[in-house]
Amino acid sequence: MSSATPAYDDANIFAKILKGEIPSEPLFETDAAVAIMDIMPQSKGHCLVIPRAASRNLLDATDETLATVMPLVAKLARAAKAAFGADGVRIAQFNEELAGQTVFHLHFHVIPVYAGVALKQHAMGEVPMATIKAHAEAIRAELAKG
Amino acid sequence: MSSATPAYDDANIFAKILKGEIPSEPLFETDAAVAIMDIMPQSKGHCLVIPRAASRNLLDATDETLATVMPLVAKLARAAKAAFGADGVRIAQFNEELAGQTVFHLHFHVIPVYAGVALKQHAMGEVPMATIKAHAEAIRAELAKG
Repeated sequence: MSSATPAYDDANIFAKILKGEIPSEPLFETDAAVAIMDIMPQSKGHCLVIPRAASRNLLDATDETLATVMPLVAKLARAAKAAFGADGVRIAQFNEELAGQTVFHLHFHVIPVYAGVALKQHAMGEVPMATIKAHAEAIRAELAKG
Repeated sequence: MSSATPAYDDANIFAKILKGEIPSEPLFETDAAVAIMDIMPQSKGHCLVIPRAASRNLLDATDETLATVMPLVAKLARAAKAAFGADGVRIAQFNEELAGQTVFHLHFHVIPVYAGVALKQHAMGEVPMATIKAHAEAIRAELAKG
């Protein structure tokens, strides 16, 4: 291919979260991935699935990583939609800065949408951490239903 | 979960494309999915991966379908980026009308992005079919490189 993806650099916030070096608001974790709240949410319940495997984004991810993570994205989408009675869910995954990628470790956005509520701009929201934690608890309660 | 996903209805355009009842501009196909051009592209090279399995969207898709399709989405993203020297790629997948879903058969958008070029609104573009076909040929040429 003509334009190579830059090499993975582990000096990114999600790598630090995966190593436990900085805190996050967890939703679930598996051997392959973690799910956490997005702390600059575009909507109520905006959350993320982050594979543990090191890749910059979709372009350099292995097939195995992608095959493993996508059912987890769906699981989280169902839980987030149910937790808040959302009218729909957007899945977004950005590759490279021009596409909106701000953290260079592969991740999938799960963004509940609500009738009459416009989405905030990506990574521009400011929501109190207590609110994020309350939303996380609602999603965890749905996940616990199985 | 509190809000069930409506049942799949095969009276949708992608079901008809999968059955060969209406034409599309194909990029590749496997036993599990087809990749085609989006005929109302948000950007040059906007294309789609559509699993053959019947599901309305991510919310009612099986884990097997999702695990199989995601490596194909990545394959197409790499090819589309390379074909046009795009600066990035957005992957988008919409669940329910409020989230932007317009065809109710699971599909993944692969949207190349370019410096200085704003994305068109979803499903609002009008691009001549000859242009779509030329873009398809460029992506197929990249795919043929393997």
